[in-house]
Amino acid sequence: MGGDNAPDVVLDGVAQALDADSSISILLCGPEQIVVPFALNHSRVEAVIASEVISMDEHPAEAVRQKKDSSIVVGCQMVKDKRAQGFFSAGSTGACLAAATLVIGRIKGVKRPALGVILPAIKRPVFFTDVGANADCKPEYLVQFAKMAVVYMQNILNVENPSVSLLNIGEEDTKGSQFAQEVHALMRTSVPQFAGNCEGGDILEGEFDIVVTDGFTGNVCLKTIEGTSKVLFKYLKRVFVSTLFTKIAAALVMGGLKNLKNTLNPDKYGGSPLLGINGVCIVGHGSSNAEAIKNGILAGAHQVRAHVCEQITAAFSSESQKEV
Amino acid sequence: MGGDNAPDVVLDGVAQALDADSSISILLCGPEQIVVPFALNHSRVEAVIASEVISMDEHPAEAVRQKKDSSIVVGCQMVKDKRAQGFFSAGSTGACLAAATLVIGRIKGVKRPALGVILPAIKRPVFFTDVGANADCKPEYLVQFAKMAVVYMQNILNVENPSVSLLNIGEEDTKGSQFAQEVHALMRTSVPQFAGNCEGGDILEGEFDIVVTDGFTGNVCLKTIEGTSKVLFKYLKRVFVSTLFTKIAAALVMGGLKNLKNTLNPDKYGGSPLLGINGVCIVGHGSSNAEAIKNGILAGAHQVRAHVCEQITAAFSSESQKEV
Repeated sequence: MGGDNAPDVVLDGVAQALDADSSISILLCGPEQIVVPFALNHSRVEAVIASEVISMDEHPAEAVRQKKDSSIVVGCQMVKDKRAQGFFSAGSTGACLAAATLVIGRIKGVKRPALGVILPAIKRPVFFTDVGANADCKPEYLVQFAKMAVVYMQNILNVENPSVSLLNIGEEDTKGSQFAQEVHALMRTSVPQFAGNCEGGDILEGEFDIVVTDGFTGNVCLKTIEGTSKVLFKYLKRVFVSTLFTKIAAALVMGGLKNLKNTLNPDKYGGSPLLGINGVCIVGHGSSNAEAIKNGILAGAHQVRAHVCEQITAAFSSESQKEV
Repeated sequence: MGGDNAPDVVLDGVAQALDADSSISILLCGPEQIVVPFALNHSRVEAVIASEVISMDEHPAEAVRQKKDSSIVVGCQMVKDKRAQGFFSAGSTGACLAAATLVIGRIKGVKRPALGVILPAIKRPVFFTDVGANADCKPEYLVQFAKMAVVYMQNILNVENPSVSLLNIGEEDTKGSQFAQEVHALMRTSVPQFAGNCEGGDILEGEFDIVVTDGFTGNVCLKTIEGTSKVLFKYLKRVFVSTLFTKIAAALVMGGLKNLKNTLNPDKYGGSPLLGINGVCIVGHGSSNAEAIKNGILAGAHQVRAHVCEQITAAFSSESQKEV
């Protein structure tokens, strides 16, 4: 029942994911009248009945505590019980974060899980984190976000030695808020891949593999990128419909523009991994279409096969041993 | 000597400003061999010799304290002494902020001056502040930024009753960091024009006349907007050069695209007003071209004529009387 267009696009997306990857099977959580008929018509789908729905405007943690039979809580519980290897939802991001943390739980040593996204930067894909799980952060959280992002980029995008940058308002070490300066100093000593600060304008250039920030700045920034791109396409449309010549131009360039929109489409990567949880957990956009649902499920499967959680667990266990 | 292309583009910009506005006269600060010949060749220009230059990478406050004969300090001193009614520089933003605060001083009651920009949002121009003067803020600073922005929009863009929004990571009152929640509560009680939170994606839609945030988030966000737009144009270029047909399309649509780039061009508004200083102070982009220099100077003259400083002074004096 997750997302603005549930259940139709969710079911479409599930069907597409099953077609695209013959070795996955899906535990589909939701209301009986929706999931049971779908499971009867599709092999490799098991219906898991969840009678409650958490809506977008409910208080996340309260909803998770009260609605034990919502698809989000039931889905996370299956990951906790090892019945499922990963969880995907396009439902309320806050509720997914709360359920993942409260029901599945954090990896030992991880102070706060972080949401990441892969951005289509011009030189290479960039992993940007935290994009909204933690509005209030301590400097050491960002160091952990960086370490989890390194594991993700190594195992999911096969970047052997990903460079890490801190989002700041100046490139020099001494620039930025008190908080950013503290994070910078900590990164220097604790993250071997740390390559210095970057600014808002550098994220989409792709000078670094990973850009780390707090969840407030990250969320504002991610939505600013999406919003700017949306507004630019609106302005472009105005240009293209203005005269006969520009309409001809539009026809000639349409295919290329569609490809470009596709390149920039956040649905391509299908949702944001929530790193630091003791199980794979992918949170989709509320506005996900069927392709985004499919890609979110496939991204979850990819993360399971690449053993991202196990690698983060290993990274944090060797770290806590070092501290002892 | 300010900006990446000084002194040539600065002199070009000054000449253009003199042509565009026959009632302004300019006190041109800089090295003798540059400003004296220019003043001899142009009416309404007086050469003011400043022998020192503050470079982009110097520590702003230290540089301002030590280099008393830099054009930034000399220029601000003339505003302080009422020899000049406004100050414009495309030099080090940090040094301009420091000189404006230390030399000219703040308006009584203003706790921190704030940098603003006018953004070309799709529905209307949006005033976005603070874009970098204050990396660390207290909630009450943002309330003051909002009040100064209201005065600016009323007097410069003639928006009678500008709506104010707080940049946050959710629209609901209870969303966001601890800091954002505190600001929200304070705005509700002290800013009559406050219309609620907005998110990163809403800024360029132009749902609100004014968007307020702290200087860290604002700077990251502004540079993200500029960077995203730059990267999108790079991607567009790739689309247009890909085949013969798209090259034809490019030729047909070139004029419209140039107009679009112009619409989005931050140079159009010529620099960022620093509000809360006891005199008009406009800080230009380091990469300003001659047009940006011209527009920055004209924006300064506009602010002088619209009595923005006097209006802010009045707004803050009636406020402190209320408090008494």
